Amino acid sequence: MSNEITSLITETPEEGYQLAVQLSRKAISTILPDPESRKKMYPDYIGDARNLTHASEVVAIHFHTISQANDFWKNK
Amino acid sequence: MSNEITSLITETPEEGYQLAVQLSRKAISTILPDPESRKKMYPDYIGDARNLTHASEVVAIHFHTISQANDFWKNK
Amino acid sequence: MSNEITSLITETPEEGYQLAVQLSRKAISTILPDPESRKKMYPDYIGDARNLTHASEVVAIHFHTISQANDFWKNK
Amino acid sequence: MSNEITSLITETPEEGYQLAVQLSRKAISTILPDPESRKKMYPDYIGDARNLTHASEVVAIHFHTISQANDFWKNK
Amino acid sequence: MSNEITSLITETPEEGYQLAVQLSRKAISTILPDPESRKKMYPDYIGDARNLTHASEVVAIHFHTISQANDFWKNK
Amino acid sequence: MSNEITSLITETPEEGYQLAVQLSRKAISTILPDPESRKKMYPDYIGDARNLTHASEVVAIHFHTISQANDFWKNK
Repeated sequence: MSNEITSLITETPEEGYQLAVQLSRKAISTILPDPESRKKMYPDYIGDARNLTHASEVVAIHFHTISQANDFWKNK
Repeated sequence: MSNEITSLITETPEEGYQLAVQLSRKAISTILPDPESRKKMYPDYIGDARNLTHASEVVAIHFHTISQANDFWKNK
Repeated sequence: MSNEITSLITETPEEGYQLAVQLSRKAISTILPDPESRKKMYPDYIGDARNLTHASEVVAIHFHTISQANDFWKNK
Repeated sequence: MSNEITSLITETPEEGYQLAVQLSRKAISTILPDPESRKKMYPDYIGDARNLTHASEVVAIHFHTISQANDFWKNK
Repeated sequence: MSNEITSLITETPEEGYQLAVQLSRKAISTILPDPESRKKMYPDYIGDARNLTHASEVVAIHFHTISQANDFWKNK
Repeated sequence: MSNEITSLITETPEEGYQLAVQLSRKAISTILPDPESRKKMYPDYIGDARNLTHASEVVAIHFHTISQANDFWKNK
């Protein structure tokens, strides 16, 4: 399953951010596993400014976790 | 009770994420213990993009806790 | 007063989670001390999927605090 | 000014929780300094289940900060 | 520019709290730089109990950061 | 791609705050990559007090991460 998390360690902050986006989406597909249902909801998801801001918050929380896991990439 | 948390330690980040999902659901069944009431609310729960984003946030907070508990699986 | 917090230390993660639920309810009874007012609001509280998700988030934040206090029950 | 924070250190978790409630209210009186305006808004504030849940979240965040400041009252 | 952050270190928790309020406002003026637009939105901002609670949450998050930066003012 | 994060380390808290704003916007452009769609949503985004407060929260979370990465700029 390509959606599986194998590690929180990334080479760069940019890759860490992309992983954070992936982790935030993973919850949606876990709660709503049917792809058709997700497709139907998609316009509501991206067409609502408040929802997008909230989605950005979820990314921020995961990015915090991933940043800690990588000691903030201080040694890179 | 199968819903009981016995440990925050998991073998992999993937199992940690699944535990985070379980912890986020546990609050709902604690606050609303009647399965019939939860079943009736289920369409509202999964049919609302904003609510799904918020549910993803709850998973993110628990995943942070579990990641810290496992020292971010650095030694795995 | 039975609602008073005497310690954040618990024997198990499960007890820690139950304490997190108690701490999240404590704010409601502190802000709205009249039991009759709380009883009247109760259907709104549990009958709204978005509110339940938010309540689950409050539990997640307290559970993080309690997990840290107990060093994630690593030695249990 | 009685509303001033002089310390985050408290004797007990219960006092820490009460301080968290106080800190969450302090932002409201800082943003809305006029007592008459706050009084008019009060029914909206306490009469809305979603708002109460959100207020409980603010308390949870401050309680986390205060718990860290007191090393979770481990030595008490 | 008077709005610039020069340091997270403050003498007292009270000053730390005031800095947290300032940091939470700074995002608004960064996103909405036109003072006229902010003035027009102001009644919506302070006239909505839910928004005030959310604003209090933003202050709580910044206050956590500032409290950590100052080692919770333990040595003061 | 100018939007790429190369480091969380900044010279000053002010630069750290500006990076936090950039990280909060980055999620929006990742989720909604089409610039035309973002332009159409922009009035909703900045014209809603609740959304602005939420956006300020996202900045606060990223600023916390960046502040930790920079050890709160204590040595500057």
